[in-house]
Amino acid sequence: MTYRAPINDMLLALNHGAGLQAAVKAGHYGDYDSEIAAAVLEEAGKFAADVLAPLNRTGDEHGIKLENGGVTTAPGWPDAYKRWTAAGWNAVSGSEDFGGQGLPLAINAACTEIWSASNIAFGLCPLLTLSAIEALDAHGSSELKNIYLEKLVSGEWTGTMQLTEPQAGSDVGSLRSRAERAADGSYRISGTKIFITYGDHDMTDNIVHFVLARLPDAPAGTKGISLFLIPKFLVNADGSLGARNDIYASGVEHKLGMHASPTCTMTMGDKGGAIGYLIGEENRGMQCMFTMMNQARLGVGLEGVGIADRAYQQALAYAQDRRQGRAIGKKGDGMDAIIVHPDVKRMLMQMRALTAASRTICYATAVALDVSVRATDPAVRAAAAARGALLTPIAKAFSTDIGNEVTSLGVQIHGGMGFIEETGAAQHYRDARITSIYEGTNGIQSIDLVTRKLGVNGGASVWALLDELSETVKRVETSNDPAFGTTGAKLRDALGSLERASKWLLERLAAAPNDALAGATPYLRLFGSTLGGCKLAEEALAARDLSDIGNPERYVTLARFFAENITVQAPALERTVIDSADGVNGADAVLLP
Amino acid sequence: MTYRAPINDMLLALNHGAGLQAAVKAGHYGDYDSEIAAAVLEEAGKFAADVLAPLNRTGDEHGIKLENGGVTTAPGWPDAYKRWTAAGWNAVSGSEDFGGQGLPLAINAACTEIWSASNIAFGLCPLLTLSAIEALDAHGSSELKNIYLEKLVSGEWTGTMQLTEPQAGSDVGSLRSRAERAADGSYRISGTKIFITYGDHDMTDNIVHFVLARLPDAPAGTKGISLFLIPKFLVNADGSLGARNDIYASGVEHKLGMHASPTCTMTMGDKGGAIGYLIGEENRGMQCMFTMMNQARLGVGLEGVGIADRAYQQALAYAQDRRQGRAIGKKGDGMDAIIVHPDVKRMLMQMRALTAASRTICYATAVALDVSVRATDPAVRAAAAARGALLTPIAKAFSTDIGNEVTSLGVQIHGGMGFIEETGAAQHYRDARITSIYEGTNGIQSIDLVTRKLGVNGGASVWALLDELSETVKRVETSNDPAFGTTGAKLRDALGSLERASKWLLERLAAAPNDALAGATPYLRLFGSTLGGCKLAEEALAARDLSDIGNPERYVTLARFFAENITVQAPALERTVIDSADGVNGADAVLLP
Repeated sequence: MTYRAPINDMLLALNHGAGLQAAVKAGHYGDYDSEIAAAVLEEAGKFAADVLAPLNRTGDEHGIKLENGGVTTAPGWPDAYKRWTAAGWNAVSGSEDFGGQGLPLAINAACTEIWSASNIAFGLCPLLTLSAIEALDAHGSSELKNIYLEKLVSGEWTGTMQLTEPQAGSDVGSLRSRAERAADGSYRISGTKIFITYGDHDMTDNIVHFVLARLPDAPAGTKGISLFLIPKFLVNADGSLGARNDIYASGVEHKLGMHASPTCTMTMGDKGGAIGYLIGEENRGMQCMFTMMNQARLGVGLEGVGIADRAYQQALAYAQDRRQGRAIGKKGDGMDAIIVHPDVKRMLMQMRALTAASRTICYATAVALDVSVRATDPAVRAAAAARGALLTPIAKAFSTDIGNEVTSLGVQIHGGMGFIEETGAAQHYRDARITSIYEGTNGIQSIDLVTRKLGVNGGASVWALLDELSETVKRVETSNDPAFGTTGAKLRDALGSLERASKWLLERLAAAPNDALAGATPYLRLFGSTLGGCKLAEEALAARDLSDIGNPERYVTLARFFAENITVQAPALERTVIDSADGVNGADAVLLP
Repeated sequence: MTYRAPINDMLLALNHGAGLQAAVKAGHYGDYDSEIAAAVLEEAGKFAADVLAPLNRTGDEHGIKLENGGVTTAPGWPDAYKRWTAAGWNAVSGSEDFGGQGLPLAINAACTEIWSASNIAFGLCPLLTLSAIEALDAHGSSELKNIYLEKLVSGEWTGTMQLTEPQAGSDVGSLRSRAERAADGSYRISGTKIFITYGDHDMTDNIVHFVLARLPDAPAGTKGISLFLIPKFLVNADGSLGARNDIYASGVEHKLGMHASPTCTMTMGDKGGAIGYLIGEENRGMQCMFTMMNQARLGVGLEGVGIADRAYQQALAYAQDRRQGRAIGKKGDGMDAIIVHPDVKRMLMQMRALTAASRTICYATAVALDVSVRATDPAVRAAAAARGALLTPIAKAFSTDIGNEVTSLGVQIHGGMGFIEETGAAQHYRDARITSIYEGTNGIQSIDLVTRKLGVNGGASVWALLDELSETVKRVETSNDPAFGTTGAKLRDALGSLERASKWLLERLAAAPNDALAGATPYLRLFGSTLGGCKLAEEALAARDLSDIGNPERYVTLARFFAENITVQAPALERTVIDSADGVNGADAVLLP
């Protein structure tokens, strides 16, 4: 079972649900040619199907090996990576100043979905490199940029992000890795980092590590953290590789999934300290990290979308192939393909609708991030930045929750075969599970949504979005298309629920913050379910005006299914946010009697 | 991390939520001594903690091996199994006529939870034996019973259930294994079975296989299936073991979880045909299977409860131990245990509440099955049989869905460590995944609920249950305990939703069965969420009258949490059942454009 990028769905989501077309029309994308998205996605889909998808099982089966201080990836992976960089895929959204193609993040987001769908463990490596590029581009000295940025943009070298230590996970501020100032202006870093994705591998000649550490005289907590660039091999003045630096993979994790992606324990300082170069200012490392977090979190959300779509495609093919039982009322001999059974149809529709909604949410986040840097009007940029900031935790958490739900449905549709590893459905289920944990657990995303994105401006970002969504719902209500069923009513109810829950949270944030935190997770779900429902409805409305989309009514049915199965839960989620804080905050008596 | 059976919670669920105490008082359990449950569970908990729990990781890591036609289990497993049978655990609910202890199913259900929690892959083996015992006891000739039943009851030999073939999964009627009549009254069976749990192993001297096959002159479909007993080793007249029979494990599956439980492909007939003995009548094999299905499905539901509780206990311990961040408003240095964070409290409460609700639903099913055979009044027996039949698909599907949800939350609470296999949280997540598939997928359970349990008597079984639940809700409403929060209102709304959805389904079952089938899965969830909420409320009310339960208010908080987080979804599920049939049945245009 291979993977085919669903180009039509992706373009509909990108151009209409996510608002790329409107932003282009408004001039925020300069001279961007609207034909380019289709062309890029078509090519990306081919590369993914031909090169990456076939290596997905291989990677899972072989995993990676740590031997003699170096990590070996699965057979075929280094070669695939070289083809990937040679084809220019690493450089899609990179700055043209450093050899990149300078395409919108929105297009790269669609590509990220494709890489994740075809081979999530492979796609994770360039995601990390992208974060590294962003940190270096935004905060690095021009000297460091000149040495490292072009190689990172092309993908000739990969990047890592090294935050986590055994005692410092979600609580980054408690990290202990030490950096000492050296006489030449560089630093000597020592310490141990864990859970470092692609901390070592054999796909490139060099790896550029971005490491958080603490200077001897640094203040405690997050205000005393600095960011350092630490190359695996030092780079000579002529750009050639020099000595091996004192940073080594000292262990790799045995994980539930993502077997092909090395998760390393990194040790620095066994030989006197890794030579590192400061990024940004001393003690301002957290700020550097924050600037790149939006895109990294969006990237993980897109992993959720991608793995969900892969699981959907595989389940759909199985459901058309596997014959068991017969359709109601069918006469004669022989079994039917299981897709005739309503319960199987329901599961497939659920998979498809959840995937489509999370796709559009992620793409809309990317469009907002694009506009926040590309628009010329500062007010437009600021509004887009606020929108991007608001959507990011939803894109990350909602989409990755969906990745888990959809891959689980994928297993279920396979029946007993789903539990057998060679079928491949179980791998998607295993691989997806980390996405709701890393790059900030989904609980952290919910808290970020409530405390920072809702709370930061008294709800202004939320009200602005609700106004837009309300317009969409009005168009559904006045469309008079009976195929929408109860979609309009469900979406309207959901908007009310989201508004009331937001107001309640704002009030509690001030009066009793633990009450607000108790409702953060159901609030994020409420937000995603409402937003996703409106976005799919918007796409359904747009599809009716498009000539090249085939039967547009299928998008209406999909939007309807989402509204009647997912968005319909909004009022209950509102009540959970508001009613259950007492139960949550009274948990100790139950849990620790 | 070991496992401790939550005896207090289990007894509260058994005696009060599940109605054992009331049934005993009504005389349905004869001279049953109410003290016995506590004593048995206490001992079972000790055995589970001492012997079974420590082998859970070992089993996962070592898995099983098929070599020279035989399966070897993980180190320590054969010895543990011998200790298990020696301690009498296999015989808890077995007939006293054949060496069993004749204890109620309800007590065995609680024990099954304990075995599943401590070591789900181990506990699965006796579950299959129990099914075999039931089939033999109900339908076997006295000759076969005399030879096999005592050994199966004691567990000296284990049993297997062999239905599935590559083309015959959920559609059992399409199986092809053949049985030929032999001159001596026995049969010669040939064919291939797949997915046979504990189809071979090294824990006992003999294995008694129960195999569905088809006679040459049998009608097509389920009406032409017969059930045969096929011993691994033939049994001589004096009870000693004779020749090896022609049934072999020819392959084992590489699975997502349950690594320690061999899942075998069984080949019969390579050497002339396996010698088998008819159980019941020719062509009546499906009826034999149906009589034992209730208990087997309940057993799998209890696996869901057990694995959920295990994951909960492990997550709770981790949340008390792991320090990250600080509680809101906390001054001074140092990090707090993550259990101070409301989002973590929410996850733990969700785990505990879901587990407790599914536990009581399963126990209530067991009590109904007990009363259906133990009560003296035929009307009471019939009502209990209908109740047991109604609850069985809910016990199976709701509890195993919960097993998946709760083990996923368990991973989440561990953060990045949850994705690392050595932590053990991921094993529970992997192991749980099969429970919603085998013994009838949860989709099949939902269809069974709608078409047979709701539809069979015009909803009478459902209305009878709703009347009882309404009484419970009335007691919550009149309790005037503010700690219940909005519990009463949520439960009352849910009862209304369940009643309306049931009526709608009954109407559609007759008029447009595909509409009813389309809503089967959300209907089962609606049913479980309503029933579970009422049951937890009933337990909370009962706890206030008990002297030995500690602070009873914690059960009120738990019931409240469930009502405000799970039962609250009932109205949305009602709407999904009723509104979304069009979307589901219009899926082809979306899925297969």
